[in-house]
Amino acid sequence: MAAYKLVLIRHREGAWNLENRFGDWYGADLSPAGHEEAKRGGQALPDAGYEFDICFTSVQKRAIRTLWTVLDAIDQMWLPVVRTRRFNDRHYGGLTGLNKAETAAKRGEARVKIWRRSYDVLPPPVEPDHPFYSNISKDRRYADLTEDQPPSCESPKDIITRALPFWNEEIVPQVKDGERVLIAAHDNNLGGIVKHLEGLSEEAIMELNLPTGNPIVYELNKNLKPIKPMQFLGDETERKAMGAVAAQGKVKK
Amino acid sequence: MAAYKLVLIRHREGAWNLENRFGDWYGADLSPAGHEEAKRGGQALPDAGYEFDICFTSVQKRAIRTLWTVLDAIDQMWLPVVRTRRFNDRHYGGLTGLNKAETAAKRGEARVKIWRRSYDVLPPPVEPDHPFYSNISKDRRYADLTEDQPPSCESPKDIITRALPFWNEEIVPQVKDGERVLIAAHDNNLGGIVKHLEGLSEEAIMELNLPTGNPIVYELNKNLKPIKPMQFLGDETERKAMGAVAAQGKVKK
Repeated sequence: MAAYKLVLIRHREGAWNLENRFGDWYGADLSPAGHEEAKRGGQALPDAGYEFDICFTSVQKRAIRTLWTVLDAIDQMWLPVVRTRRFNDRHYGGLTGLNKAETAAKRGEARVKIWRRSYDVLPPPVEPDHPFYSNISKDRRYADLTEDQPPSCESPKDIITRALPFWNEEIVPQVKDGERVLIAAHDNNLGGIVKHLEGLSEEAIMELNLPTGNPIVYELNKNLKPIKPMQFLGDETERKAMGAVAAQGKVKK
Repeated sequence: MAAYKLVLIRHREGAWNLENRFGDWYGADLSPAGHEEAKRGGQALPDAGYEFDICFTSVQKRAIRTLWTVLDAIDQMWLPVVRTRRFNDRHYGGLTGLNKAETAAKRGEARVKIWRRSYDVLPPPVEPDHPFYSNISKDRRYADLTEDQPPSCESPKDIITRALPFWNEEIVPQVKDGERVLIAAHDNNLGGIVKHLEGLSEEAIMELNLPTGNPIVYELNKNLKPIKPMQFLGDETERKAMGAVAAQGKVKK
């Protein structure tokens, strides 16, 4: 029998996904379709009788809006919410805001695939002349970082490296105290938690495409090891859209 | 010159206000008009260049939704938010959910006026046979209160008595640290803060009708005393609706 349950929700597309642009620390909002999907995902939860005690999210609005939408749907807006930049989406450095297909046309599909799908390859760093440099590097939500601390770009490995200490230090004690935890965040940091829980290899985690908008449920034993594969709540048809994610970095025919 | 600024927002009408019912701990939502008003109030803030560092609200959704709406309008959804039941709306006891005009017809306008407008008069307590007893007294957001702790009814004085320790212990240190604080809450607890800041009498605070939806700005000296009267941001015409609040407890002609 499961000692604990943990629920993860990956936000779906931000407005920039619609434009096929590289994700970001710029803070693009959830798209209307992403909002609708989060609503459906939230509605799947009360059907399954889920109650939570505490929620975690990033400091980026597409994750926060996903969480708000779910909390509203399950009538648990009163729950404490902890926001952390350690759960932010990937900092795509100099690629931030660039169109994926155009970048593939210019730099080659193979290069873009490496940037998107390699575990520890860095994209080019964001430079002071990048159109979003100030928006990101001078954003006051990162003002308590010293000059050399804000990343100028990140690999998937970097994201996991910053997310896991927060998981271990802030969330694990809550789970072990019996607090029912809901995390609304982004692809790579949720992937990092999945990698950690399931002991997946670097290759395996890069192949994993978590469904978006669909609550992902883990049943864990008292050592926080999954006692069965992750379960998905909500609409199965939504998950079939997952394949679309992999196609974004291909040159448009 | 002001050492600190403090911004308060009182939520406007909940769905129950529309039905002229006594406010509650039941957790009625914001009405659509209240939502629109919060949006306008939020839009008034960036026009005035306001930035915040931390937000406080109650555990009731009409205050939380007001805060969310404002945070969305000012693009500061990433701010930390502290929810506390000490900032909850008034627990109207046995009157919870009753129609104000019907109650006035039954119990007399004078009696209803005393319940609504006296500083330290308690409404009848909520009893186990009250239709909302379980919703309120058994709500899990109050589960950490021992059996005798959840109030069965409150006077305005009680609300201020529970709100002020939170103000003094949790908010004052933040303000003195230079954190820019935004509080989205309800009539009586915001009134309690106003009473405390301005040193108002019990009579004076019961006469005060804070505008709803409109950000209320205090400029404070280093001892947290106001250096000028509270200022209102946003639409002046909204404030003119204030008079309507006083008329709710009159028998319908």
